[in-house]
Amino acid sequence: MKRRIITLLTDFGLQDPYVSVMKGVILTICPTAEIVDISHQIGKFNIREAAFKLAFTAKYFEPNTIHLVVVDPGVGSSRKSLIISTENYFFIGPDNGVLSLAAEKDGIKRIIEITNEDLFLKPVSNTFHGRDIFAPVAAHVANHIPLNKIGSDRNEMIKLSLTKAAMISNEIFGEVLYTDGFGNIVTNINSDLLKKLNISHKTKMEIEIKAKLENIILCNSYNEVKKGELLGIIGSSGNLEISANQKSAANLLNAEINDKIRVRVFKV
Amino acid sequence: MKRRIITLLTDFGLQDPYVSVMKGVILTICPTAEIVDISHQIGKFNIREAAFKLAFTAKYFEPNTIHLVVVDPGVGSSRKSLIISTENYFFIGPDNGVLSLAAEKDGIKRIIEITNEDLFLKPVSNTFHGRDIFAPVAAHVANHIPLNKIGSDRNEMIKLSLTKAAMISNEIFGEVLYTDGFGNIVTNINSDLLKKLNISHKTKMEIEIKAKLENIILCNSYNEVKKGELLGIIGSSGNLEISANQKSAANLLNAEINDKIRVRVFKV
Amino acid sequence: MKRRIITLLTDFGLQDPYVSVMKGVILTICPTAEIVDISHQIGKFNIREAAFKLAFTAKYFEPNTIHLVVVDPGVGSSRKSLIISTENYFFIGPDNGVLSLAAEKDGIKRIIEITNEDLFLKPVSNTFHGRDIFAPVAAHVANHIPLNKIGSDRNEMIKLSLTKAAMISNEIFGEVLYTDGFGNIVTNINSDLLKKLNISHKTKMEIEIKAKLENIILCNSYNEVKKGELLGIIGSSGNLEISANQKSAANLLNAEINDKIRVRVFKV
Repeated sequence: MKRRIITLLTDFGLQDPYVSVMKGVILTICPTAEIVDISHQIGKFNIREAAFKLAFTAKYFEPNTIHLVVVDPGVGSSRKSLIISTENYFFIGPDNGVLSLAAEKDGIKRIIEITNEDLFLKPVSNTFHGRDIFAPVAAHVANHIPLNKIGSDRNEMIKLSLTKAAMISNEIFGEVLYTDGFGNIVTNINSDLLKKLNISHKTKMEIEIKAKLENIILCNSYNEVKKGELLGIIGSSGNLEISANQKSAANLLNAEINDKIRVRVFKV
Repeated sequence: MKRRIITLLTDFGLQDPYVSVMKGVILTICPTAEIVDISHQIGKFNIREAAFKLAFTAKYFEPNTIHLVVVDPGVGSSRKSLIISTENYFFIGPDNGVLSLAAEKDGIKRIIEITNEDLFLKPVSNTFHGRDIFAPVAAHVANHIPLNKIGSDRNEMIKLSLTKAAMISNEIFGEVLYTDGFGNIVTNINSDLLKKLNISHKTKMEIEIKAKLENIILCNSYNEVKKGELLGIIGSSGNLEISANQKSAANLLNAEINDKIRVRVFKV
Repeated sequence: MKRRIITLLTDFGLQDPYVSVMKGVILTICPTAEIVDISHQIGKFNIREAAFKLAFTAKYFEPNTIHLVVVDPGVGSSRKSLIISTENYFFIGPDNGVLSLAAEKDGIKRIIEITNEDLFLKPVSNTFHGRDIFAPVAAHVANHIPLNKIGSDRNEMIKLSLTKAAMISNEIFGEVLYTDGFGNIVTNINSDLLKKLNISHKTKMEIEIKAKLENIILCNSYNEVKKGELLGIIGSSGNLEISANQKSAANLLNAEINDKIRVRVFKV
């Protein structure tokens, strides 16, 4: 039987055995599953961070990959458990918005509430649905169980609220989606918006973030500025990122997730 | 040939290549092994933490899984190397108590001292038995080598000393087994003991920890209290955990491994 | 088809999804690849640290393993991309010296500059060649693509500059290659040099590091000194390491990568 990929994305950290417990459960039910970790170091309960990282990552996996996410502040409450089938993938996790960006990006086909308790690990705890509900369901999907046996269709789910970047007169108003481990500041400003302002390679921009103004050049590579200097670049997400050559722009600018950012062409 | 799972639990951390060296050794000897990390971020030399985490985790893996543990402050000394076969598993590691909880929980069948040097990676270092002894032996077990070819049977091994929680008059005296990455305080008080005190869902308890008193409710899910508030809950280990809704109870109470905890029903 | 091992060594960290993106790309092109992480917690842009760790680790993997390294401060610049075939392995990564130690150690057969854009993920970004160039090329190598289809041979590459330890009169002058997570201080002084000074088991040595003198014994195992005390030991790399029994020698001595170290036999 061909192997089936299951990706894992959680806020469990790696010092505890919780991730491995989920892997043990999955491999017991579906021995041919191939498990790939996306990250387990999402900020605790940070649904927004997990949603962005999943939306960035999901598409690099082969069709029929099962993406399993457990960032779940509402575990044990009345929040629902979902499996969403999209054009290419299955997304499994709590109904709290964490799956919504990636699922909508790939094109939602069906939203199913997970209700078939026969699939669960018993007794189901109120604190670890990753182990008791989500891992076994993902393994059964890898075993090709029909979706109808998992639960019943729903018309809606909780969606993450997103602010779109906008151009107002000669300025772009956006925000920081997240900063990464290199200190790159990933914004919600895509390259189309920059083009509308006639910002292209070598354009000098004025950006405002945390009430501070900086003049930076839109570069094609980090090395176009000196080591330690700030720059703008269209990053691997396709959006504008504020970076520094071999330094952390996030530290230099004290930038954080959700910070507002304003961009315009620099004028003397 | 069917694949065989080998789990790894060490205090090696992830910035060094030591874990991957063990994986290279294993996969060279047994190319069909499937390796699953339990954790490599056990506190350096913390046998007790590793023993609890192994005992929590081992049973979620399929029968015949090989659990390999290297938390080994006595590497290079006269401490022995063990393979323990239990009802369902094989446990491999140093004879320092780190395997004892999990092995006893699953039911010990044989304890064998690893002595067959033909199985080792040569020359055997005095600093890295994970690479030179434990990884190759685990891989040979995955290759179905008979246990008699690994060493000779022993009657005993070093066991972790454990304090059992106890009820004295109307109070339970227990201790903190460990705190996890979410700040949940996992105690050695199981649900049977709570029942003897008539503590059940919604019961208000008085707990004493670090010479501080707190009144908390036994809850079925974190969300039964407000965000940031303390609660008691029967956690995924089956024991009483002191938690806080979306906050770290360990930080709030300054709780650490081995702290004493006293529990009784709250009376006005 | 037999599975093929691809190891990954990067400075990406584990909180971001970048490593998993590379895995998704690899597994889409070569579904039978088996991916093993060496480390993703190399210091950001620390080519030297990655080079040493790769040279330590590579040889524990089976012949034909593909070692993929992305520590790449020059991404997007004119630095070249390389695949090096050696006696036993393939090394893939940027031409900045990061591959040189391991490749030379195993014996270089061919150095090829990666130029065939048909193999790349399009559009190729200027910020994430791990995803767009190195991961797909590694996967194609795992699929047995002939090296001639990847690019053209070169005669040279950038090599890491290395200082060799030397004996001058009755003293050895060496340096710290790196410190590991246990606080072991790994030096560039091999056991042959120690023998020339007649330093063997139980010899008392005087070492100078950070302008401080310490007298330590060359031990065969950590336990030959008391807990917390310093010792010298031939570590798992085959070189002299300065360690402390169950403590961090690096912290005790405030030692860092590149520190000079002087060793001689202690004389009253």
